[in-house]
Amino acid sequence: MSQLEFNLLARDSRSMARAGTLKLKHGVVQTPEFIVVGTRATVKAVDPADLKRIGVQITLANTYHLWLRPGENVVAGQGGLHNFMGWAGPMVTDSGGFQAFSLGYALEHGVGKLIDNFADRDWFKKRKPLRPKLARIDEDGVIFRSHLDGQPLKLTPEKSIQIQEKLGADMILVLDECTSPVASYEYTKNALARTHRWAERCLAARTTDQALVGIVQGGEYQDLRIESAKFLGQLPFDAYAIGGSLGKSKLDMLRVLEWSNEILPENKPRHLLGIGSIEDIFAAVARGVDLFDCILPTRLARMGIALIRSESGGHIGNHWRMQINGSMLNDSRPLDENCSCPTCTRFSRSYIRHLQKSGEMLGHTLVSVHNIAFMTRLMQEIRTALIGGNFAELQSTWLESVREKA
Amino acid sequence: MSQLEFNLLARDSRSMARAGTLKLKHGVVQTPEFIVVGTRATVKAVDPADLKRIGVQITLANTYHLWLRPGENVVAGQGGLHNFMGWAGPMVTDSGGFQAFSLGYALEHGVGKLIDNFADRDWFKKRKPLRPKLARIDEDGVIFRSHLDGQPLKLTPEKSIQIQEKLGADMILVLDECTSPVASYEYTKNALARTHRWAERCLAARTTDQALVGIVQGGEYQDLRIESAKFLGQLPFDAYAIGGSLGKSKLDMLRVLEWSNEILPENKPRHLLGIGSIEDIFAAVARGVDLFDCILPTRLARMGIALIRSESGGHIGNHWRMQINGSMLNDSRPLDENCSCPTCTRFSRSYIRHLQKSGEMLGHTLVSVHNIAFMTRLMQEIRTALIGGNFAELQSTWLESVREKA
Repeated sequence: MSQLEFNLLARDSRSMARAGTLKLKHGVVQTPEFIVVGTRATVKAVDPADLKRIGVQITLANTYHLWLRPGENVVAGQGGLHNFMGWAGPMVTDSGGFQAFSLGYALEHGVGKLIDNFADRDWFKKRKPLRPKLARIDEDGVIFRSHLDGQPLKLTPEKSIQIQEKLGADMILVLDECTSPVASYEYTKNALARTHRWAERCLAARTTDQALVGIVQGGEYQDLRIESAKFLGQLPFDAYAIGGSLGKSKLDMLRVLEWSNEILPENKPRHLLGIGSIEDIFAAVARGVDLFDCILPTRLARMGIALIRSESGGHIGNHWRMQINGSMLNDSRPLDENCSCPTCTRFSRSYIRHLQKSGEMLGHTLVSVHNIAFMTRLMQEIRTALIGGNFAELQSTWLESVREKA
Repeated sequence: MSQLEFNLLARDSRSMARAGTLKLKHGVVQTPEFIVVGTRATVKAVDPADLKRIGVQITLANTYHLWLRPGENVVAGQGGLHNFMGWAGPMVTDSGGFQAFSLGYALEHGVGKLIDNFADRDWFKKRKPLRPKLARIDEDGVIFRSHLDGQPLKLTPEKSIQIQEKLGADMILVLDECTSPVASYEYTKNALARTHRWAERCLAARTTDQALVGIVQGGEYQDLRIESAKFLGQLPFDAYAIGGSLGKSKLDMLRVLEWSNEILPENKPRHLLGIGSIEDIFAAVARGVDLFDCILPTRLARMGIALIRSESGGHIGNHWRMQINGSMLNDSRPLDENCSCPTCTRFSRSYIRHLQKSGEMLGHTLVSVHNIAFMTRLMQEIRTALIGGNFAELQSTWLESVREKA
């Protein structure tokens, strides 16, 4: 019996958005929520006590990275991920499947999750590999080469579950194949059938009470996404994720979400994998997504970019981002004047610019804490709006700053 | 009127050691105490809230570094160092004089504060420069070249005080010349006379209520150290520091301390500049030193070295140091089994080794916090022993582990 209980608290009358309570083995997560990513069992540069202080409810670690280093047995020997990394709250691990994608097609084709991210927008018409891929997929599983030492490794559905059971997160993901945004219908259809067989193998392989999450695939193709949501929806998964290629544009992504979430069981949580921009979160919540994860807030922080609220000058035109730079050397304001995080209540832009210019690690820590606190508060506001019945108003407040200011 | 009040609480009957209470503008420091160094207005990789949590009483920032970047006017514009770096407790700034030494003689001669640190132990007999020095000293002050961009800069006693007044620490230091351990008697004598004239210029230059600290110089020469302690002791300094070359060995250093502290006023605090090894702290406390500062705990941390207590296997033979390494990958013990710091109560050697191997910043933070907590607790124990009348026993406990275990 899996340790997952999901209760809907409110539904938006004008969209598919909903607020809920997700009860997991290590605690309760109010949804919709943004899951903070700690790839190698650490949210980069942030002490887990600070995550707790700023209200983070749930974190995610990457199975692929931990499998390679330090190894799942090392983590298991330390009592599992929670104990290992000092995070007592709910956790997710992914399956390693996305790395098959990022080491395979992404390197081969030079693409991200959306074709929008192409360096060469016209490349996908040429269909020639940019680089040889590091991953090969067959019925049994994925053969990787380690990005650390080039050693060949094989990940199967059973192996992924076995590793994730040793890591011990509250929610674990099935192994899936993330097809490329440039994959043909034929390829995607065959890959989806295999992904569905893998999903059943994952269900059969699990031996613990961790919640198991099925992943809807099918690329940008409507019939395949619908087929996938139907197929997985009738299997006894505890929750669902939407993964893989989300099409060639943001609009494609939204259609993929609608196709999937109209079919997935209402009473189970839905996680949109790897997406975390503010506009995407609003759009995806409106299409029934409950959980998000993304490295963006912490990666931006290490690039010296702070997220700033709409009332502080953020808008869709600047992606709610503020680059910390030399012009701020005498700026005594906090990163965001409307933020009450431990960074903004204690430190000025001037100081953070000084840390950045001096190459001091504390700079990364302080901006990371701020950016995570920004996301945490945004999600709180979204939940409050859903419960209060004014989600559309909140969305407008955030997104309409676009037209005024962009 | 300077904001410094120093009261002796206890004296050791068998040594010059004493415990006291040092009241400064931003709070009270129980002495003897180790001052945690935050060169560029940040204790590397550590949030000031964590310093407070582990009981740090006082920090030090470097005038030379802050003068060059971000500039003392930037810090002043942010309300001074305390506000700038989010540290509300007592602070010290040095004068920049030590950098004249480290950019001058240290580069020229390849030496540290003790001739023991020579790469080439016999070099000092040869008296040929290893590298051209970057600093030149005359009556007026020191001409540096910036280590950042090679621009020439001039630091005079008046300029040092002016910068330190803008930085706003509780205790500020006079500009002095740190003579090299290989300097001749003649050179050291002339330099000392100039350092004394500079000390008087610093007294004349100050305009604030910051406590001003005179620095005893005179190298390894008994008559010069005595002359310096006498000369400065009769001037209205709020506290004293012992600086410069401490001779060719640890024994020389101890004699320098005895010569100086037998003469310096009993009722004023004494700071041994830049020294922080455990054996030196015990020896120097026994010779009447109240304050220490050193980058060692945080620098060792970034090298993956944890300080460990005597009852945990530390001794003078291993300098109470434990290198974190691959053999600890499955070690579930904390860095130090007898430590209750926020690192040791939450994280295993296994996890810290993982962070280190993965190049994760949190590793530096966690070991830095531990090493600082180690020093803070050691000093607490020294104070408790002084007040309880068993300092010699404590010293034996720590230092005798040598013979048993080394």
